[in-house]
Amino acid sequence: MDSKPAFQDLYSEDFAQCYGCGRLNEHGLHIRSRWDGEETVCEFQPRPYDTAITGFVYGGLIASLIDCHGTGSAAGAALRERGGTMGVSPMPRFVTGSLHVDYLRPTPLGPILEIRGRIKEIKGRKVVVTSTLSAEGVVCARGEVVAIEIPEDFGVRAHG
Amino acid sequence: MDSKPAFQDLYSEDFAQCYGCGRLNEHGLHIRSRWDGEETVCEFQPRPYDTAITGFVYGGLIASLIDCHGTGSAAGAALRERGGTMGVSPMPRFVTGSLHVDYLRPTPLGPILEIRGRIKEIKGRKVVVTSTLSAEGVVCARGEVVAIEIPEDFGVRAHG
Repeated sequence: MDSKPAFQDLYSEDFAQCYGCGRLNEHGLHIRSRWDGEETVCEFQPRPYDTAITGFVYGGLIASLIDCHGTGSAAGAALRERGGTMGVSPMPRFVTGSLHVDYLRPTPLGPILEIRGRIKEIKGRKVVVTSTLSAEGVVCARGEVVAIEIPEDFGVRAHG
Repeated sequence: MDSKPAFQDLYSEDFAQCYGCGRLNEHGLHIRSRWDGEETVCEFQPRPYDTAITGFVYGGLIASLIDCHGTGSAAGAALRERGGTMGVSPMPRFVTGSLHVDYLRPTPLGPILEIRGRIKEIKGRKVVVTSTLSAEGVVCARGEVVAIEIPEDFGVRAHG
């Protein structure tokens, strides 16, 4: 699985500064997501201080994982929908319109977390991604991201 | 306003390790919330690297602020509902059952952010808190947290 490129690694430099998933943010989490068949998958190792109640993972980190996995999956899905090729075609970039997380049970702090996404809807510039977050095979949280594509020249305009 | 104690500062030591709001988490964000009349308020200065797209605040941080402000506000509201006194009575501790964030517009990175909460519902161990997140007086995100109280002896049992 690791040999496949991550969606977030293919963002243009202007869009690769995100604290959650930007390869150019040296302080960030470097969340990375890939295709795994029809699903998208991300693995993440929380740090010892990513705690909520002692022994359990901080809910804000779980929200961040579902968020950046969602926008990354949206980019991958939009590229595929348009017949683009990962690593060759320019990668679209989505931001979060809304985020919902249901915390089903406390997430143990220690194991690698697995976030699996499914593309629920693609419509114009909007992609809806639903995800589960699991620890050792047990689903601890479910989430949904409504991701909105930003114009390709947004960075240029924002900087200009 | 700063003279009023923050809800999160009154959590017992067992419950003060949270990355978002725990006073004992040395790596954490130290989110702190207080009463301001019938509303609750939190101010937070993002760090330069808390970015999404360059120039704008990371959505996962916004989710974290709404999350910990929500659970903190829930604790304050439950204490008040029971006739307790801030800083004297034991502070209840809530965790997040669900979190929803609508990102209304990009949040500029630079200004101090203000998160304002309202108590929408208190019912048994459940408190629902709605929040707005503003930068320079402009609401950039809205959120809702369903907060669930954890038993007072949870930490003892989890450690035992």
